[in-house]
Amino acid sequence: FTVEGHLKQALKDNIPSISHRSKAFESIYSTAVSNLKSLLGLGDDHHVLFTSSATEIWERIGQNLISHESYHLVNGAFSSRFQQTIAQLGKNAMSTEVNEGAVVDIEKLLIPETTELISFTQNETSTGASQPLEDIYKIREAFKDQLIAVDMVSAAPAVTIDYNKIDTAYFSVQKCFGLPAGLGVWIINNKCIEKAESILNQGGSIGSYHSIPVMLEKAVKNQTPETPNVLNLYLLAKVTGDMLNKGLDQIIRETNYKSAVLYQAFEQASYLTPLVENPVHRSKTTPVAVSSVDSSKIIADFEKIGLILGAGYGKNKSKHIRIANFPTHSKEHIEMIADRLVEAKY
Amino acid sequence: FTVEGHLKQALKDNIPSISHRSKAFESIYSTAVSNLKSLLGLGDDHHVLFTSSATEIWERIGQNLISHESYHLVNGAFSSRFQQTIAQLGKNAMSTEVNEGAVVDIEKLLIPETTELISFTQNETSTGASQPLEDIYKIREAFKDQLIAVDMVSAAPAVTIDYNKIDTAYFSVQKCFGLPAGLGVWIINNKCIEKAESILNQGGSIGSYHSIPVMLEKAVKNQTPETPNVLNLYLLAKVTGDMLNKGLDQIIRETNYKSAVLYQAFEQASYLTPLVENPVHRSKTTPVAVSSVDSSKIIADFEKIGLILGAGYGKNKSKHIRIANFPTHSKEHIEMIADRLVEAKY
Repeated sequence: FTVEGHLKQALKDNIPSISHRSKAFESIYSTAVSNLKSLLGLGDDHHVLFTSSATEIWERIGQNLISHESYHLVNGAFSSRFQQTIAQLGKNAMSTEVNEGAVVDIEKLLIPETTELISFTQNETSTGASQPLEDIYKIREAFKDQLIAVDMVSAAPAVTIDYNKIDTAYFSVQKCFGLPAGLGVWIINNKCIEKAESILNQGGSIGSYHSIPVMLEKAVKNQTPETPNVLNLYLLAKVTGDMLNKGLDQIIRETNYKSAVLYQAFEQASYLTPLVENPVHRSKTTPVAVSSVDSSKIIADFEKIGLILGAGYGKNKSKHIRIANFPTHSKEHIEMIADRLVEAKY
Repeated sequence: FTVEGHLKQALKDNIPSISHRSKAFESIYSTAVSNLKSLLGLGDDHHVLFTSSATEIWERIGQNLISHESYHLVNGAFSSRFQQTIAQLGKNAMSTEVNEGAVVDIEKLLIPETTELISFTQNETSTGASQPLEDIYKIREAFKDQLIAVDMVSAAPAVTIDYNKIDTAYFSVQKCFGLPAGLGVWIINNKCIEKAESILNQGGSIGSYHSIPVMLEKAVKNQTPETPNVLNLYLLAKVTGDMLNKGLDQIIRETNYKSAVLYQAFEQASYLTPLVENPVHRSKTTPVAVSSVDSSKIIADFEKIGLILGAGYGKNKSKHIRIANFPTHSKEHIEMIADRLVEAKY
């Protein structure tokens, strides 16, 4: 909720006009990276790269980290689109798929040893199903040679994964960071760098301006290969600074409290049921409820009183409501939504 | 220069928070496209696509429009980087290269018939050398089967090419459109669509979320495959509207007048010489002068009185000055720069 103030300040300081080869830009870049590293607990082995979206990162992972084969845990629209992306790049994208609202049972997984990368979607935004971190860590233990990739799109930084136990993770800034869309954050470790170099050395193509080696070459100078979304990088530097000041513990406590309030409302409202049956798999940041009435009616009624609820994703548009529970959403705001959900009659 | 006002209005209207799957977004998208089509004189055979940068478009052209071989007219850092991009994608990027400040003499070109795409850089931003449009049209006549690609990065819309005589063109919005960086505009015709489909049908990979067919599938619905830079699309819709109101003829007249003023100053100032010798090849939008003194001194002196001049590109940083002459720069502003350049003693 500090974004608007920062955006106004950016205009005053002429941020949209600064050159991406200037010292002023390098300082913004450096602050964004060091704040993200502090916030997420990243070490020297981790590198932070910037793309234009998390969608772009799917493609960059396909180019740089998979030469032939990947394995995807699929439980909704976003995990499925990542798998499709890899297939579109002409690579063998294998998967285990479960119904919407569930997460893949890792005990039943049969991942071939030939897999180069195993993909988790920590928080499947389309369904609000959340893969327990312990599942990811167990697969890490069992597959030490493979790369582990984790989609943290609507989870980071409100969900704290141990980045030392995975190889690459990514998110976009319009979810938990509350920024305008148009920037993706890609975290990689040294094993990812080695993989990209090995594909390149074997004569493969890993892309051009946004291949890992080309991005890193600029990143060490606090620059980007292309003219980037300077304004959003500035806002990211500011907002991550605010988050550090507030403290991540506090942000997580509030997220957990607000999600408990929302799920309680889902249980109490006669016309709602949480989509995700197992409480352990329920997303803290994107709770989803199945509605017994057309959800567009509920959404329209709430809009009249200034409360914005999300529709279901894709084919579930009128069957579900999805509520964003990001750090930018205050306790008071979430409590008001929960109260209204319980009071409403349909 | 209307951008700041539009940005403030965007904040009031909560544009940074709107969903890219909403009607409000579709309306912004549709306005941006139809304004660009009017402004550039595009017909039904032309399609406008959005990427995150012109750098990205180089890669997308490589993936979608070149299966084996391209030919590049290289005369500076940007035309050279496009060639490198195609080579990085594992394709045969041939070229004719001339010194900085010159343009390739098309009469001396030997382009193989096996070339699938011929690349022009209409305005080489690193040197201020501008390829005459007639050169491009002559190559079009001679190579009817090939695709003609034109880099219009710092030229459009102040330079009016006949888009019916080329197959694809591209630019970014932070130059002549005066917007914050983070958006590329890619114009393609139906021949480009056919080429991408033919590569795909022959088993080639044309990328994933930003392949031509995937982008077009969303574009017809006024949407994008990924969560785009919504704020910049809004600003582009507004600024292109302002440009249409002002009239492109007027914008071009002013651009020509201001560039004449700047080149006259380069001739008159004893310490400056236009980098581009042949007046026919001199860029209207990015005039570059060679300085007999360290240009960083001139730039610092001008900065003291609030006038921002650009340094030379790359290795010419302290040897050249580059002056952006975009629609956002007023006649008065350019006249003041020119007067000061002539008055100054070094």
